[in-house]
Amino acid sequence: MKLYSYYRSSASYRLRIALALKGLPYDTEPINLLKREEHEATYRAINPQMLVPSLALDDGTVLTQSLSIMEYLEEVYPNPPLLPADSLGRARVRALALAVACEIHPLNVPRVLNHLVAEFSCTDEAKNRWMARWISEGFAAIETLLAHPATGAFCHGNMPTLADCLLIPQVFNALRFQVAMDPYPAIRRIYDHALAHPAFLAASPENQPDTPGKS
Amino acid sequence: MKLYSYYRSSASYRLRIALALKGLPYDTEPINLLKREEHEATYRAINPQMLVPSLALDDGTVLTQSLSIMEYLEEVYPNPPLLPADSLGRARVRALALAVACEIHPLNVPRVLNHLVAEFSCTDEAKNRWMARWISEGFAAIETLLAHPATGAFCHGNMPTLADCLLIPQVFNALRFQVAMDPYPAIRRIYDHALAHPAFLAASPENQPDTPGKS
Repeated sequence: MKLYSYYRSSASYRLRIALALKGLPYDTEPINLLKREEHEATYRAINPQMLVPSLALDDGTVLTQSLSIMEYLEEVYPNPPLLPADSLGRARVRALALAVACEIHPLNVPRVLNHLVAEFSCTDEAKNRWMARWISEGFAAIETLLAHPATGAFCHGNMPTLADCLLIPQVFNALRFQVAMDPYPAIRRIYDHALAHPAFLAASPENQPDTPGKS
Repeated sequence: MKLYSYYRSSASYRLRIALALKGLPYDTEPINLLKREEHEATYRAINPQMLVPSLALDDGTVLTQSLSIMEYLEEVYPNPPLLPADSLGRARVRALALAVACEIHPLNVPRVLNHLVAEFSCTDEAKNRWMARWISEGFAAIETLLAHPATGAFCHGNMPTLADCLLIPQVFNALRFQVAMDPYPAIRRIYDHALAHPAFLAASPENQPDTPGKS
């Protein structure tokens, strides 16, 4: 499998975690978002959405949208599972994942931030406020959802699930933009726990082939 | 089941379509977003994300996040299916659904538009430009994804799937904000086809208990 990825992209990071948790080998094809390589014709032919990640299967089929790809991996490579066995648990994990994927992340991607600058002459300060607002609002809701008996060392029980695959990259992003994490002790605890897990480490933006400073 | 819904909310509309396609009866509990009822303590206790929809099951369990709820319904009430039987088909349908749920809709919800006004003194004209931009960009990508042999009368084959549950409300929104649909003939064709389907009609913002002008 070939993963079209950018080291710092949250959505790429999510999928790298899932691939690592399932022990699936893949080649990384870096797409440099700073150089806007996702807009180039060669990549556009692979993913007309001009977004990373995309996952090319060995037969050439290209899958897009990180959550859809993760559900595909879960169906085709069910072990270890990234969703609980019961439907209510699965609904909880997916809701937590979507609370990141639909309520926080889409507002803080480069294309939106660039547009804020172009359209509203948004300053760097206002940009940071914008990021912090959606992260804080989203984390406050997730922190409340985590005050639930099913929460364990990870978001749902003691093994990582799709919810952790989504949450950890979002925390990485929050820290990168200096969002205060004190109001979210459960999120912070899960983040610290996940960082000690080899799959999360392998998937981290610091350890990718296209991480600046790596060979 | 009890659905916490707002007649014009896209995310509520999606879920109403899925419920109607599966023939599942429910009571509607209207949450008026114009009156900010989603922020009131009683609703916050039901869904700390302060978003609609939420679905309360008969035992009182509350499910949140429209896509997670639809996956739950698909697991518990598999007929008629809203996902294809094959994993690659399922990945395609979920990717189309997420292309709406993660790339278009989150940018155009009231809380974001209100924030644009508060933070950047965004005019009505700039607000409409903002909406149109993300809808157009997203629809252009989806239109390309629909140029695929699996596309039928609906997004994937000739029966409605989760992709249509997501796409139709987004088109409704686009038309409401006068986004030109000429560049997206496949999307428009699927929209027109869906509107003739009784489940899509029953779920429509025009036909809800809380639609203004209805009793």
